[in-house]
Amino acid sequence: IDVVSWELEEIEKGSFAHFMQKEIFEQPESILRAMQGRIEFENATAHLGGLNLDRQELLNIERVKIVASGTSYHAGMVGAYLLEQLARIPCTAELSSELRYRNPIVERNTLYFVVSQSGETADTLYAMRELQRKGAKVLGICNVVGATIPRESDGGVYTHSGPEIAVASTKAFTSQLTVLYLFSLFMARMRHMSFEEGLALVQAMDGVPALLQQVLSRADSIQELAEKYSYARSFLFLGRGINYPVALEGALKLKEVSYIHAEGYSAAEIKHGPIALVNEETPSLFLVPNDPLRDKVLSNMKEIKARKGPVIAIAVEGDREVAGIADDVFFVPNASPIVYPFLLMVPMQLLSYYMALILGHNVDQPRNLAKSVTVE
Amino acid sequence: IDVVSWELEEIEKGSFAHFMQKEIFEQPESILRAMQGRIEFENATAHLGGLNLDRQELLNIERVKIVASGTSYHAGMVGAYLLEQLARIPCTAELSSELRYRNPIVERNTLYFVVSQSGETADTLYAMRELQRKGAKVLGICNVVGATIPRESDGGVYTHSGPEIAVASTKAFTSQLTVLYLFSLFMARMRHMSFEEGLALVQAMDGVPALLQQVLSRADSIQELAEKYSYARSFLFLGRGINYPVALEGALKLKEVSYIHAEGYSAAEIKHGPIALVNEETPSLFLVPNDPLRDKVLSNMKEIKARKGPVIAIAVEGDREVAGIADDVFFVPNASPIVYPFLLMVPMQLLSYYMALILGHNVDQPRNLAKSVTVE
Repeated sequence: IDVVSWELEEIEKGSFAHFMQKEIFEQPESILRAMQGRIEFENATAHLGGLNLDRQELLNIERVKIVASGTSYHAGMVGAYLLEQLARIPCTAELSSELRYRNPIVERNTLYFVVSQSGETADTLYAMRELQRKGAKVLGICNVVGATIPRESDGGVYTHSGPEIAVASTKAFTSQLTVLYLFSLFMARMRHMSFEEGLALVQAMDGVPALLQQVLSRADSIQELAEKYSYARSFLFLGRGINYPVALEGALKLKEVSYIHAEGYSAAEIKHGPIALVNEETPSLFLVPNDPLRDKVLSNMKEIKARKGPVIAIAVEGDREVAGIADDVFFVPNASPIVYPFLLMVPMQLLSYYMALILGHNVDQPRNLAKSVTVE
Repeated sequence: IDVVSWELEEIEKGSFAHFMQKEIFEQPESILRAMQGRIEFENATAHLGGLNLDRQELLNIERVKIVASGTSYHAGMVGAYLLEQLARIPCTAELSSELRYRNPIVERNTLYFVVSQSGETADTLYAMRELQRKGAKVLGICNVVGATIPRESDGGVYTHSGPEIAVASTKAFTSQLTVLYLFSLFMARMRHMSFEEGLALVQAMDGVPALLQQVLSRADSIQELAEKYSYARSFLFLGRGINYPVALEGALKLKEVSYIHAEGYSAAEIKHGPIALVNEETPSLFLVPNDPLRDKVLSNMKEIKARKGPVIAIAVEGDREVAGIADDVFFVPNASPIVYPFLLMVPMQLLSYYMALILGHNVDQPRNLAKSVTVE
């Protein structure tokens, strides 16, 4: 039986050397699948079938909480930012394991999402049950159809990423993001967002797969970066605003497959302590989209350079100022600032992948990790 | 002028070699000062003079948000846990720098606290002004009397820590905690907390200085641990529940003065990725109080041991099971579970201090850092 399934996996990998590589490169299609049939261009909104909420319930939502672990928690943090900024609904993301044992306060008119690729993550499943016990309505955002969380939740949305085999999650993350973008758009259009603003967002989302294709076509230069920086034992990953959780997720990828101690921070926060780590041997990776926080991030970059820390930037095509400060820059295409989380994430996934290969690690099955964490 | 002030500092250090050491050892008194005149034993509650809130305003509080950076942010995270658990008031802690640029949603009946030792932290000051612009009532928890935040806030509480000279904050942190405990007690007693429960908490708080004295008297064994583990380049600091932010703060101390890449996590969260870092050369420090989460933490410890990761535990006197799993244990006195954040924090402060000395660093003025971060 093992032989057969292995052959099957070989076939499924197609022309790719590893599942992680295949899944990274699949993202233009997997994101498209997560959007398919859910965007209404003519109304500049989204609809999501499985929410099980009627109009009045939707109008009554006063706050949203997103509960998850690991990579899904980082997706939830992006989602919290989106819901607050787009729909002006207060939202926080929380760690499943911590929420479960905190005797959580379930308030009226609060909608909960639990996010889990497998739909079997024990911490998240038990957190969901505890919330339901307290009367909460909990929706799931999961990939595996018919898993325990989708079955026990009060509704939810599938990400349709297709099977994710590599232990380190890549395409499942960007599909979770996609669903959270669509839900935020939908809620925003029910509240204060105009048709024009909705249309701009719909168009920005619609453009993501093609932009990611461009990013992926430049994978070679990420491989060069991986070679140059694979010496590092410690790394800081820095972003701000909506891209702060994206930096956290980038650091988690590097930990998971390259075993390099990468830690994510808000770029603004390093001066409150972590910058003490910086020296010639501790590189920092900055996410520098051309959004209103760009100038602040540039000044954080200069602080790192002044302390002789090597700086890699992931920035937007044509940003010469970044190129003048950073030691190395990877450029992503220009886009609407709201969708940069997708464009900035993929280069970090590639960086982790290539670093793991260079360091000789089993990239699809990293040490100490299981794909689906079904124990507490 | 420089010469004079230096001599003055020399005098102020007294019998201690460094300010950080002095300030760590001062904590039994500084915590006492933060409590002094604020505890009502006869009513089993606390009163805090500068809140500027009348009874109706206090009763109307529906949620609390705590906004801060660095060490103060970790104090805020503990405070959020306390307010939810003791007073059943929903509370979150947020990073000042991120909140400021997120166009924060200010809701009715929401009380804000900003926390800053110096009262001049630029990120926190600007976040406060943005919140006030949106109509929020913002109280400060500061140490330096008459600083900008106390002057511009709508009220607040001084921590009375006395001057903190070492860049890495120690006694200011435990004083901020003390104030947040007192505020939580006060709010809890206005809501659902009985006299008996209040009295138990008051007595537990009252006992903290003497218990810390016991911890400090065993500093030598922390020094031995520091010698044994100063080889490490990477460290995980792990706690759960109320002690999860305490683990974050412990990791920050090690970064700040020892330049060792320590990262804090909820102990439950490591299996979702970070455990891939663990090998013979990457020690983990676990906080293991005898609270209801102890058994979960023990099983996380066993997972690390199974991957050959060295384990240090800070546990409670007499916990033989922990001693059987961990490579090294530092014992703190038995106490009411709610006050363990104080008892578990101090050994980690000492560990960072001794490691910095062993590694030959300037412990009072670590590289790249300023005491009061008055720029964004």
